[in-house]
Amino acid sequence: MNLVTLDDIAAAARRIDSEIVRTPLLAAAWGDPERPLWLKPESLQPIGAFKIRGAFNALGRLEPGVRARGVVAYSSGNHAQAVAYAAAAFGVTAHIVMPEETPTVKVQATRDHGAQVVLCAAGQREAVASELVERTGGVLVPPFDHPDVIAGQGTIGLEIAQDLPEVASVFIPISGGGLASGVGTAVRALCPDADIFGVEPELAADTAESLAVGHRVDWPVAQRNRTIADGLRSAPSELTFAHLQRVLADVITVTEDEIRSSVRELAHRAHLVAEPSGAVALAGYRKVAVPPGPAVVIVSGGNIEPPMLADILSGGQ
Amino acid sequence: MNLVTLDDIAAAARRIDSEIVRTPLLAAAWGDPERPLWLKPESLQPIGAFKIRGAFNALGRLEPGVRARGVVAYSSGNHAQAVAYAAAAFGVTAHIVMPEETPTVKVQATRDHGAQVVLCAAGQREAVASELVERTGGVLVPPFDHPDVIAGQGTIGLEIAQDLPEVASVFIPISGGGLASGVGTAVRALCPDADIFGVEPELAADTAESLAVGHRVDWPVAQRNRTIADGLRSAPSELTFAHLQRVLADVITVTEDEIRSSVRELAHRAHLVAEPSGAVALAGYRKVAVPPGPAVVIVSGGNIEPPMLADILSGGQ
Repeated sequence: MNLVTLDDIAAAARRIDSEIVRTPLLAAAWGDPERPLWLKPESLQPIGAFKIRGAFNALGRLEPGVRARGVVAYSSGNHAQAVAYAAAAFGVTAHIVMPEETPTVKVQATRDHGAQVVLCAAGQREAVASELVERTGGVLVPPFDHPDVIAGQGTIGLEIAQDLPEVASVFIPISGGGLASGVGTAVRALCPDADIFGVEPELAADTAESLAVGHRVDWPVAQRNRTIADGLRSAPSELTFAHLQRVLADVITVTEDEIRSSVRELAHRAHLVAEPSGAVALAGYRKVAVPPGPAVVIVSGGNIEPPMLADILSGGQ
Repeated sequence: MNLVTLDDIAAAARRIDSEIVRTPLLAAAWGDPERPLWLKPESLQPIGAFKIRGAFNALGRLEPGVRARGVVAYSSGNHAQAVAYAAAAFGVTAHIVMPEETPTVKVQATRDHGAQVVLCAAGQREAVASELVERTGGVLVPPFDHPDVIAGQGTIGLEIAQDLPEVASVFIPISGGGLASGVGTAVRALCPDADIFGVEPELAADTAESLAVGHRVDWPVAQRNRTIADGLRSAPSELTFAHLQRVLADVITVTEDEIRSSVRELAHRAHLVAEPSGAVALAGYRKVAVPPGPAVVIVSGGNIEPPMLADILSGGQ
């Protein structure tokens, strides 16, 4: 299997440069001085999450004639908005397939970026997306299972290595594994002494189990769906799992309480609004014996519903 | 009176470059497309506010032999932490005078940066600070009434002009006026067609009145203290007022409800935690007929007490 390379990621960085925010590394002065904590706030991207990097790279890699036929994606989350946003920037049509139970606010946010939203029954997303591809001639942009998407997310790792070459550890949330695959590849290539940690909710810890046994273990969707971290309910593909096996030092699992506590810490100490999935990596940093030296935590997204944010900041469990 | 120049600000930028976060301009995609809104999140600076720029410039300008005697400041807010942080970075002593009624959390935050906190009775801050200067030989770093502080805050304007040369309007909170003096000077010099708007709470609108009548009008402290925006309760000095007269197109005043609403908008749409003072400029942008073209709103700080944040995000008035 061909894995994504540093060259792919460097090319992605040049391709998406003008479309994304080059997020600064923020020093979290309240961390352990032996393991100074730095935050990479991808929550500050347009659409509020790192997903925009992979979407712009995937669309940018298409031949203009192919791209003009439009793109198709299935997602109820940040990937939907990322593809819709990137398609609008390229001036092409986006069809986004979302389950009927998707909260109205997320459907509306995707429509606001100019996308055509196609609602479908639960479990039918991939089938409906395939039909759309056939009918429209558009190109499917998968949420993580594609080299161009992985390379786009990997540009975060490139920026970390440029801004903090002495980085000793990086903490990355794991769901489908596209983010950790890309970032891990870039950091391992440029800072070979740094340890890359994946972080998962205990309630969706399929990757921790899969890496422990050496092959992908399937957790039922209903089980993964228990976590509050709604962006971390997917499971790696063959492609991302192969990357994760290569780049991760370990996977840390965290509880729901630890995730909520990290949302509070980010708001109160770092002045960042993170969604639960975006706070998971900080929970991982807080949980384990971190190697000495600078540590980077990726705050992957900020799209949290206002009532949930108010509840968590009021101390709700 | 000598006003701060673009050269002073450019020199300040070189001086503080390695100590501050070069905050990105964040596109607020939900704004009016004719007046696209950009946010300058100074809440992401190390101490959570723009004040760190002026403090580093003021300390950096001192002769090393003078600086070694330490620095003195009086403040119960972000300036206290900024001077404490900058002094620690330079390895010199900071004495910070704070009123006895300062919330413990702010006293502790200042001590956490290594400063000596001297508590005093209300209204005695300046006298106690003068005594400390005499006793220690340290240098007083005022919160806004100093050219080096103004030039340091002005580096924000330099960054805006570099990143968005076509900027048409800039919205800046006004208290002592150091921020607006510096930013306004830089933007007026580099983008002469841009309009600079100051924004004040209605409950502390001394600058709006002062500019209307052409001289400084004194509002009693008790009156200014009514606003929730606790960073905007100071009044300009002669020095900052002279700058404001020169650079401001207008001063917009906003209600307490409008300020709270802007705190919510920043959290929910921009994923930024802002203190009320830091959200005032957005309230100004929302209130008036903004000139066509790109608008920049400075989110000046994020230091809000957790209970107040929870209350505002829960919809509390």
